[in-house]
Amino acid sequence: MGGSSSPCASCKLLRRRCTKDCIFAPYFPPNEPHKFAIVHKVFGASNISKMLQELPIQQRADAVNSLVYEANARMKDPVYGCVGAISFLQNQISQLEMQLAMAQAEILCIQMQNNNNNLCEIQINNNDNNL
Amino acid sequence: MGGSSSPCASCKLLRRRCTKDCIFAPYFPPNEPHKFAIVHKVFGASNISKMLQELPIQQRADAVNSLVYEANARMKDPVYGCVGAISFLQNQISQLEMQLAMAQAEILCIQMQNNNNNLCEIQINNNDNNL
Repeated sequence: MGGSSSPCASCKLLRRRCTKDCIFAPYFPPNEPHKFAIVHKVFGASNISKMLQELPIQQRADAVNSLVYEANARMKDPVYGCVGAISFLQNQISQLEMQLAMAQAEILCIQMQNNNNNLCEIQINNNDNNL
Repeated sequence: MGGSSSPCASCKLLRRRCTKDCIFAPYFPPNEPHKFAIVHKVFGASNISKMLQELPIQQRADAVNSLVYEANARMKDPVYGCVGAISFLQNQISQLEMQLAMAQAEILCIQMQNNNNNLCEIQINNNDNNL
C-alpha cells in the first residue's frame, strides 16, 4: 500500500500484500495500472525490483520513467523497440549534418565569389583611372 | 543444443537441456555467454522467450540484436538506459537544426546584400550614362 488505502498497481497485478516499504508503491500508484503492466511484461517485476534496489532513492523515479518509455517502445515496435528510435534519430542527424555542410559550403562559395567580384571591380577601377 | 554438440549459452546459464527446437539456440551460441547473460539480467529469459515466440522467425535475429543493445545500454546507464541515448540524440538534432537555420539565414542575407549592391551598381551605371 505504501501507506495508502489501496495496494499499488504492482502488488495488485502480482496479487501480493502491499507493505509500507513496497519498492514499487511510490512509482506505480493504483490509478495507473497500465504503467506497471507494461514494464512487467517487458522487464519482469523481479528484474525491475532488482534494478530499483541497486539505485539510490532519488534516481528511482527517473529509472522508472525510462523503463516505462522503453517498454512502451518495445510494445509499439516488438522488433527494434527503442533501438529503432535511436537508428531513426541517427539517420536524421546524418541528414542534418550533410545539409549543414552544404549550407556552409554555399556560404563560402558566395563569399569567395563576392571577393573575386570586388577584386575584379578594383582592377577595372584601377584600369579606368590609368586611362 | 539447437543441433550442435554443446548447449546454447542460454540453456547453459539456465542449466536446462538444450533441445533441437530451442528458441534461443540460433541467437545465443555457446561461445558468446555474455550476450545471453546481459539480456537475461535486464529482460529475463521468460520474457525474451515470449517476445521471440510472438515474432516471425525472420525477424527474431534483429529483435535479439536490439534487445542486446538495449540491455547493454541499461548496464552502462542504469538510470536512463537507451532513453539517455535518445535524449542525447534529440538535443544534438535541436542544435543542428538551429545551426542549419542560422546558416540558411546567412545565405539569404548575403544574397539580399548582393542583390542590393547589383541594383545600386545598375543605378550608378544608368546615372553615368545619363550624364
